Amino acid sequence: MPVHYIKSFTDVNALIQSWGIENYYVITDHNCETHCVSKLLGGQKLPTGRIFSFEPGEKNKTLHTFENGIELLSQNNLSRKDCILNIGGGITTDLGGFVAACYKRGIDFINIPTSLLAMVDAAHGGKVGVNHKHLKNYIGSFKPAKHTIICPEFLKTLPSDELESGFAEMLKHGLIADSDYWHDLISIDVQHTTASNWLNYIKTSIDIKSAIVSNDPLETGERKILNFGHTVGHAIESHLLHANTPVHHGNAVAAGMVIEAHIGISVTDLNSQSADAIKNHILSTYGKIPIHRDDIDRLIELMLADKKNHNDNVRMSLLNDIGDCGYDIPVSEELMRNALLYYIDL
Amino acid sequence: MPVHYIKSFTDVNALIQSWGIENYYVITDHNCETHCVSKLLGGQKLPTGRIFSFEPGEKNKTLHTFENGIELLSQNNLSRKDCILNIGGGITTDLGGFVAACYKRGIDFINIPTSLLAMVDAAHGGKVGVNHKHLKNYIGSFKPAKHTIICPEFLKTLPSDELESGFAEMLKHGLIADSDYWHDLISIDVQHTTASNWLNYIKTSIDIKSAIVSNDPLETGERKILNFGHTVGHAIESHLLHANTPVHHGNAVAAGMVIEAHIGISVTDLNSQSADAIKNHILSTYGKIPIHRDDIDRLIELMLADKKNHNDNVRMSLLNDIGDCGYDIPVSEELMRNALLYYIDL
Repeated sequence: MPVHYIKSFTDVNALIQSWGIENYYVITDHNCETHCVSKLLGGQKLPTGRIFSFEPGEKNKTLHTFENGIELLSQNNLSRKDCILNIGGGITTDLGGFVAACYKRGIDFINIPTSLLAMVDAAHGGKVGVNHKHLKNYIGSFKPAKHTIICPEFLKTLPSDELESGFAEMLKHGLIADSDYWHDLISIDVQHTTASNWLNYIKTSIDIKSAIVSNDPLETGERKILNFGHTVGHAIESHLLHANTPVHHGNAVAAGMVIEAHIGISVTDLNSQSADAIKNHILSTYGKIPIHRDDIDRLIELMLADKKNHNDNVRMSLLNDIGDCGYDIPVSEELMRNALLYYIDL
Repeated sequence: MPVHYIKSFTDVNALIQSWGIENYYVITDHNCETHCVSKLLGGQKLPTGRIFSFEPGEKNKTLHTFENGIELLSQNNLSRKDCILNIGGGITTDLGGFVAACYKRGIDFINIPTSLLAMVDAAHGGKVGVNHKHLKNYIGSFKPAKHTIICPEFLKTLPSDELESGFAEMLKHGLIADSDYWHDLISIDVQHTTASNWLNYIKTSIDIKSAIVSNDPLETGERKILNFGHTVGHAIESHLLHANTPVHHGNAVAAGMVIEAHIGISVTDLNSQSADAIKNHILSTYGKIPIHRDDIDRLIELMLADKKNHNDNVRMSLLNDIGDCGYDIPVSEELMRNALLYYIDL
């Protein structure tokens, strides 16, 4: 599952050609089809039937879109020796990876993430899947990409809100595993960092994630620390998606990290100074997510339905310190309510 | 992935209880719900919401039924530590196994096959999935059952056509890997064999399949010999399903073995006496499948779409001798046409 860091679109194209794949098939969304796929191919258009492009947005990461992807592959009768290129953000690498994982019980795929979030997180680690109704990634499997290609050229035209969303997962990498990296990151000006400067941080994030995943690919233990901020974050994301006021994944996770850091003060060794530092930095970058007291019951319900939980006990991955994270830590409903209230009242 | 051979329904129930599974959830079809599930549970009814029962039949082994299964699990919020019991024939173990493989990226499942076919074949080896339109098992993955329980009591009430269908896969096991077993099997009177006598043969079949699968779980090589009879058999099965005149899987595979044995005469070391012996025994047990000259083009098309093929070359698993099978053997369209004609004109 090598990661290739390639500076220019032309070189990405050359690298793919060098692998001598007989037939490849692109999975992407309509935005990326227009803005990214043609750049990668040097302006050439893919032949009809070689591209599956879907309506962008989390609400389309469904079994229905998955089935449409399978249908187009079956019409072209891709064999198990052919290959899929997922070109896009995390929705595309999750959905396209799941199509590749299930089509004829699995064909190879290559991820070419175009968003910062996908570059540092979604495109790595083999988690693929789709949502089921409002439940994020409820249907899926584990299948790592055969190759992942990181090309920072894509970042040059990425909207600033997309940069911020991806940056939240990078902050998480520092918080769970590397306090030096966290301190480096909080000095970054997200909006004014050049593509080549991003590349160094991206490498660090990928190295942190890859080391954790390689120790526990199927998330039976240590890998769960990558879920820091996500128990609450996913609930917020699902709730706001369902309310037709979606927020970016990273922004929901950023709020989740503030709330879960606050919970940490009560149940782990995390001191309140560190929790405050996390809160202050995240609020200064992301502001507050619009959740209200009326949303708390529903958010609790969504946390209980989270994939990681068992028997109505919510178990979270929580920081012991900046750079050190535990997992499978039981958290009472009362603590969750209090922490949500704390955030809402900030 | 242990296999447990348990003589009575009561002991099956006791075995499951002994594992101390906190929550289990039954996946089955309507027929099995009536005839098998209650027997296993000693007449007790499962609480509402603990059973997902679907309309029986190959035409319901779809992504739609899969999604309904996921939906019921999500309503009950099964956690990754809970367990699914698939109780039924091959359609149920394939579909239920795929639900378990994908729900929250995978929870454990136990197979309790109730048909001879599922006991000797479908319930073992980790191939799970559903059909896509007329394409058999086109969407799926590999996930072995945590336990498989073989209880020959189920065979006592199995209709004779179901016994014959399962018996075809047993014949295949002899043909691909054990000529002594083949010779034992052809002396069996399928309709008048007792449940306890079946058990010995079932064990031999499971041992043959398990040995092959453990050497090559993901079917990159040797495991392909288990597909003997299936390139042609699947095409026949898909074609007749689509024409609303379905045949049992085993009967289609039996015809496939006759046709593929005939192809073997031209492209492997198989001698015509052995091919004739296979044909004679299979025709005496199964008769002929109703396919006609007009069907040949469509059957060829379906074989080209088969999962195992690559780049419009049909590659088959073909016998070198009774008890010895090769794989990835290219077969020309002309040979396939001639062999189909040979069968049709028998």
